[in-house]
Parts: sequence; C-alpha cells; structure tokens
Amino acid sequence: MTTAIENSNDTVPSIQDVYAAHERIKPYIHQTPILTSSYLNELTGAELFFKCENFQKAGAFKVRGASNAVFSLSDEKARLGVATHSSGNHALSLSYAAGRRGIPCTVVMPRTAPKAKKDAVIGYGGVIVECEPSTSSREETIARVLADTGAEFVHPYNDIRVITGQATCSMELRDQVPDLDAVVAPIGGGGMISGTCLTLSRLAPNVRIYAAEPEQADDAYRSFKAGYIIADDAPKTIADGLKVPLKENTWHFVSNHVTDIQTASEDEIVAAMKLTWQRMKIVIEASCAVPLAVILKNPDVYRNQRVGVVITGGNVDMDTLPWITNA
Amino acid sequence: MTTAIENSNDTVPSIQDVYAAHERIKPYIHQTPILTSSYLNELTGAELFFKCENFQKAGAFKVRGASNAVFSLSDEKARLGVATHSSGNHALSLSYAAGRRGIPCTVVMPRTAPKAKKDAVIGYGGVIVECEPSTSSREETIARVLADTGAEFVHPYNDIRVITGQATCSMELRDQVPDLDAVVAPIGGGGMISGTCLTLSRLAPNVRIYAAEPEQADDAYRSFKAGYIIADDAPKTIADGLKVPLKENTWHFVSNHVTDIQTASEDEIVAAMKLTWQRMKIVIEASCAVPLAVILKNPDVYRNQRVGVVITGGNVDMDTLPWITNA
Repeated sequence: MTTAIENSNDTVPSIQDVYAAHERIKPYIHQTPILTSSYLNELTGAELFFKCENFQKAGAFKVRGASNAVFSLSDEKARLGVATHSSGNHALSLSYAAGRRGIPCTVVMPRTAPKAKKDAVIGYGGVIVECEPSTSSREETIARVLADTGAEFVHPYNDIRVITGQATCSMELRDQVPDLDAVVAPIGGGGMISGTCLTLSRLAPNVRIYAAEPEQADDAYRSFKAGYIIADDAPKTIADGLKVPLKENTWHFVSNHVTDIQTASEDEIVAAMKLTWQRMKIVIEASCAVPLAVILKNPDVYRNQRVGVVITGGNVDMDTLPWITNA
Repeated sequence: MTTAIENSNDTVPSIQDVYAAHERIKPYIHQTPILTSSYLNELTGAELFFKCENFQKAGAFKVRGASNAVFSLSDEKARLGVATHSSGNHALSLSYAAGRRGIPCTVVMPRTAPKAKKDAVIGYGGVIVECEPSTSSREETIARVLADTGAEFVHPYNDIRVITGQATCSMELRDQVPDLDAVVAPIGGGGMISGTCLTLSRLAPNVRIYAAEPEQADDAYRSFKAGYIIADDAPKTIADGLKVPLKENTWHFVSNHVTDIQTASEDEIVAAMKLTWQRMKIVIEASCAVPLAVILKNPDVYRNQRVGVVITGGNVDMDTLPWITNA
C-alpha cells in the first residue's frame, strides 16, 4: 500500500525541516530533562532514559507540533487564527501556541469533555465551540467553524507541520543521551511516533523504534500486522490519549520505520503508572505509562539495552486516580 | 538561653566541614535538579526555585545527613554498624547509606509504622526491631539495641554529622541559583533548616531563611516566639515528617539564624500539595507542601523575591491521598 505522503514527495519533511522547526519553536517550549531510576533499571535489566515531556509547556509534547504549526503560518494566514478538534492535550497546546503568537484559536470539543480540560483551554485564551460526542457532529462543527472564521485547521496529528514539531523531541533526546539502542513511545494517532521516526530514521537509523499501545485500543498494532490502516470506533481504555486511529501521514512513518508495536493490558498500564509515580516521583498520564508496561512485559527485548522512553504528558485529573476507588 | 552547641565550641561545624561532607557523600547522593513553574510564579508574584530532594536517593534529603554520618565513621566504629529510631525517611536513608558502606543498620520502628516504610527499610538491607508506639518503649528499645550491638547511634536530626550533611543541600541550591533573596524549608525537628542556616549564614548571610510549619504541629513556631524549646506530645498533622520537636543542636541554628517561622493549616497544606502535583507534575510529600502553603499565605513577604523552596521528599503512600476520600 502506498500512502498519501509517498504520493506527494515534496511534503515529506527533511531533517533540515526538523532543525528549522526546533529553531522556530524554541522560545515557546522547554528542553525537557532526562530522568533515570536505578530502581527501574534494576527491575527491567535495561538502562532507561525517560524524556520528561510531562514537564513540557502546557503539560505535554503536543505543544511542539502545535507551536510549529502556529509559528510557520504567514502573517496573513495567522491573522485569521487557527482551529482544531480535540478534547485532550492538543486543544491546550494549540490554545497556548496561538496565545503566544497573539492570534485567535477555536477548539471544537465534545460537550462531555472534562471541565478541567475546558478550563485549561480557556485559561490559555482558546475559544471553545461545543459539539456532540460523535464523529459526525465533530466534523460538521469544525467545518462550520472553518467556514465562519477562515481559520487554519491544525489536525492533532495528521499534519506534516505537527509531525515535524513532534520530531524535535527525539532530536533533543538524541543529543541528551548518546548511543541509544532503542526508543519506546506510546502510539495513538501516531504523531509522536511519526516524529520519532522522522528524526531517528535520518540521524540514527540503527536505533530501533517501538510503539506501545493499550491492548484495548490496539488498532495500530493490528494495522501494523495487516499492512493497512485499521480504525476502531471508540475503543475503551484508561490511556485516553491513545484512542484515536492512525491516518495517512502517520501511517507513512509507522509502516516504514517502526520496528514493532507492543501492547499492554489495562492492569499493566495502571501498575506501570503507579510504579512511575511511586519510584520516580513524577506525575504521568496513563497514556505514557504504556511504554514502561511493555518494557516490563518484554524483558528479553530490552535487557542490557540503552532505551529512551518518551513520557508524553502529565495532565491528570488528580481527583480520579485509576488505582484508587473513590467514595 | 545558651544551647548545648554554644557551650562546646569545638562541635559547631564550619563551612569547611560542609565542603568536606559534600565531597564525602557525593558518590552516594544525587545533585538534585531545580524546577520552576511559570504558573506558580504568576500565582505568587515571586520567582520560585524548587530544589527537588524528592528526586534524591531513597526519596528524600535525609540521605545527605545519614550518608555523612555513616561515611565519617572510622573503620573500627563502622564495623559494628549504625542504629537509629525513625518511622520515616531517616530510617530508609540510614539503611541505604549503611548498605552502600556494607555495614549493619538497625532501625527501631513502632510496630504501627506503615508497611511500605518497613518494606523499604528491608529493601535497603536494614534490620527492623519493633517497639510500641510510645516514647518510653522507643527509648528502651534503642538503648537495648545499642548495648547489644555496639552500633553507632545516628539521631534523625539532633546530630552534628547529620546537620552538616543536610547543609550540603543549600550549598548546591546556592550554586544552582544565584542571587537568592530567601529560602523556605519545612521545619519538624529542624535538621534541614539547621543545615540551611549552617551554609547560608556563612556563605550568603543576606539570604533570609524562613521555616514553614503546620499550624497543628507549631511547636517550633511557639519555641521561636518564646525563646526556648517547647515540645508537644504527639501533634496530629497530615505533614507527618514534621511532628517531632526541636532539640538542642537544631535549636542553636533556629534561634540564631532563622528569619521567621510561618504556619499553614491542614487545608492549606493539602491544597498546596495537590497544586504542586497538578501544575509541576511532581510527587511531593505533604510535609514539603508547607513552604508553598506559607508563600501563598504571605504574598507580601515573598513578592518580587527570588525564593529557594526546598522540596524535602517524595515518599508518599499512593493509596491514600489526602484530597481523595477512599471507598
């Protein structure tokens, strides 16, 4: 199967595009730190290097791609603002980036989205347009918003500017940790993994790239095995950043550059999340516990390896932690 | 009132002693990072620099003092091991440090201490001797342990070697953050605050030193106002590292070098703890949320100041978080 991006060669980003993106977004993002844990190294038999995007601006790596999209717009385009649909970290990140450029940002969110996420979008200066929690309502609403405002649509992951922005994360990781054998990152729509592939396939092609996915939302795993995109309708998982399907631009990178996709059960994800909080003293989302869960589950793959682990975000509802049953 | 330490001048540590301690313990501790939060800076009107001892070995600053005590013993003394009484981070830290030196460590713990803490002590190679949860039982038990083993007693805070070890924390902080106006640290028995006083009174005497204490365990506050040590019997607070009273060695530093002691209510402490987890994405104990709580409560004291905030530890029971009512 060929992909959209392969059919239009001029849109495949180069490593120079990633360097340019990094320069473009540097004033608006953190170079996030690498943390290690001797306890987790002993437990896994690997040497793990956690790239802590939970400490990123707006609390997640998504701000890299959103900032790259916002700051690569011409002044004329930018004047009309940006828009997206997202109930998660992309909504916060695009609002943040647009705020830094001083342009409008409209976010289509299901009316059922958590109040904390809505408040955060508003806090960053974004305007929310609510839709029903269905694909048809979302598509209809974003189309109307775009027609009304003339805003530039920035898809959460199926956008080359966004993927190129996410690629700056593994560029930093590679500078911070020499001689990596492998990198593990969560996979949902595939934005982070695609960025990782974009950078490492050019700069460090020997580094193996593993995608980590919830068993209960394993459409990327099944796509990878089948050789074409399989999209599930509304899978249920605690890792709520990983429910969305691959799209043509991310499929290009996944199908060409990912070494393997590994899955973990809900219990394994929650256990890895709690273990990270307990031992590393950092707050991470369930979505970014999936990499540690698959490392613990596949020790033979990672033993004695130097492994980069992307902690994608830390925006957690503190009142409902998955290992505590509320009263 | 004069203090024990003032009556025996040769035991007051010098800044050279702190430098020597830092060299001695460096192989066994982390130089912990400084984190900042633009959100909390905006909220407080101050510039806050968080010294993250929650990322320290064994999860707390206590490993500095414990390591200094363990590694300054002569080989002959060390052979017989070390002992202490503690149900908290000092127990873990002394076990860790003794393990690194390869000597025995006995910890007297109340039989009611949390299983997680006991498991951690055992995990580091310490031996637990249980006592009843009363002062008399604890004193009787530690006396018997010391008589039986010939081990060196290392008090959790009323020990000059321990205070000198804790002093290395603000030595790092001062190197990492130039031109601080103030430092805020929690106060329980006073080990961290005494170490902070020891370093800053010598190296940066213009930096104001604030101690932060729970209202419900405000014996240090009342001691400071009265001019002599007041010790409460078993105060109740969520900040369980801060229940113990000052002793003569820590009183020396508190009475001579602390600018002021400020207190916060239980609700204010829990709110500051939750806010830190949410916005900074780090796991901190209730005890080390007290500094942020008093900064939020006394904005006029800290506004436009560069303030070092000591996050003393991150050993939290993840199953019982104070803002969640368990089922």
